Amino acid sequence: NIRNLAMEKVATTIFFPCRYSQNGCHQRLLHTEKTEHEETCEYRPYQCPCPGTVCKWHGPLEAVLQHLTTQHKSVTSLQGEDIVFLATDIHLPGACDWVMMQTCFGCNFLLVLEKQEKHEGHQQFFAVVQLIGTRKQAEQFQYRLELNGHGRRMLWEATPRSIHEGVTAAIQNNDCLVFETSMAHMFSENGNLGINVTISKRRP
Amino acid sequence: NIRNLAMEKVATTIFFPCRYSQNGCHQRLLHTEKTEHEETCEYRPYQCPCPGTVCKWHGPLEAVLQHLTTQHKSVTSLQGEDIVFLATDIHLPGACDWVMMQTCFGCNFLLVLEKQEKHEGHQQFFAVVQLIGTRKQAEQFQYRLELNGHGRRMLWEATPRSIHEGVTAAIQNNDCLVFETSMAHMFSENGNLGINVTISKRRP
Ligand SMILES: [Zn+2]
Ligand SMILES: [Zn+2]
Ligand SMILES: [Zn+2]
Ligand SMILES: [Zn+2]
Repeated sequence: NIRNLAMEKVATTIFFPCRYSQNGCHQRLLHTEKTEHEETCEYRPYQCPCPGTVCKWHGPLEAVLQHLTTQHKSVTSLQGEDIVFLATDIHLPGACDWVMMQTCFGCNFLLVLEKQEKHEGHQQFFAVVQLIGTRKQAEQFQYRLELNGHGRRMLWEATPRSIHEGVTAAIQNNDCLVFETSMAHMFSENGNLGINVTISKRRP
Repeated sequence: NIRNLAMEKVATTIFFPCRYSQNGCHQRLLHTEKTEHEETCEYRPYQCPCPGTVCKWHGPLEAVLQHLTTQHKSVTSLQGEDIVFLATDIHLPGACDWVMMQTCFGCNFLLVLEKQEKHEGHQQFFAVVQLIGTRKQAEQFQYRLELNGHGRRMLWEATPRSIHEGVTAAIQNNDCLVFETSMAHMFSENGNLGINVTISKRRP
């Protein structure tokens, strides 16, 4: 017992280096803080932000764009703050995803639309925008997704995710544009769904 | 066979009165047109537009408002084109509904929020606006529902339903604002969800 107490004393006073210290992180952390820090540590390698692929790539933020443009050539790209993200063949059965890149304000954003069956027998669509950048950079922006047609309009506005955190949690928590299959069909034409995407700078 | 042909001939040339002729409908209809017309006939009695009640009242449009104000006193009312529809205790389990009345442009609108489990184990919220009036009158308006908070915004715009058609089909077809329970909780405060409702005249 005396020994354990001694060990606990050590654990609450000794500082450990972050596991990403070799990548440049200079933080020193208590044992109790270590896991939480490393999860969001900005020096943690970035994973490939393409949804629905089995790509195992990871590396520094600076290398993500090149990885995408060379290894995921099917991801198309559009310039401008206000573009249309066209998802084709949305009626195809099963889980699907659509990705495209939007470039504006000197930054690159990845637009993601996923069709998922989170609840059995009930397919839904989830759309979200990620910045190819850090969380801090992402917080300077705001995105708007808009569906329009037949006298109806649906809109979602939020802060982009950083590709460092990814979109899995956002989709899992419905912290994105969520819409039903019937709505997707109503807003689509010939099986193609156009989502208006507008990116803007947050007012300071 | 000759007899059947003769009967068919009769059916395609004889006109029948609408079943609501006693209420004032002067339409004369072919046998094949009768059912469809009567479903949307403007002389069909209006049913009580309160959702979730077992009220069996029906009567002419002119009597609906009085029925609501005398028999459904719990339905509160607000004046103005731009109001907040406050739904309280949205976290209570089970199917629920919230109703309130909004008065503007000399018309009365019924705002409906329903919590339903359309798909097993998956509760969702559905919000829609009805006009206490005919379909034709409803088409002159547009409504906007908006959820706001925590740097997020969700918006739905559409034409109000007439209470003559009701909201059951709109909710069944997701032709309304549909949102997940987790989103309702994110936008709510102390279990109360405020939905911004704006009614406007459609441009001709
Ligand atoms: Zn670190
Ligand atoms: Zn990849
Ligand atoms: Zn009739
Ligand atoms: Zn009633």
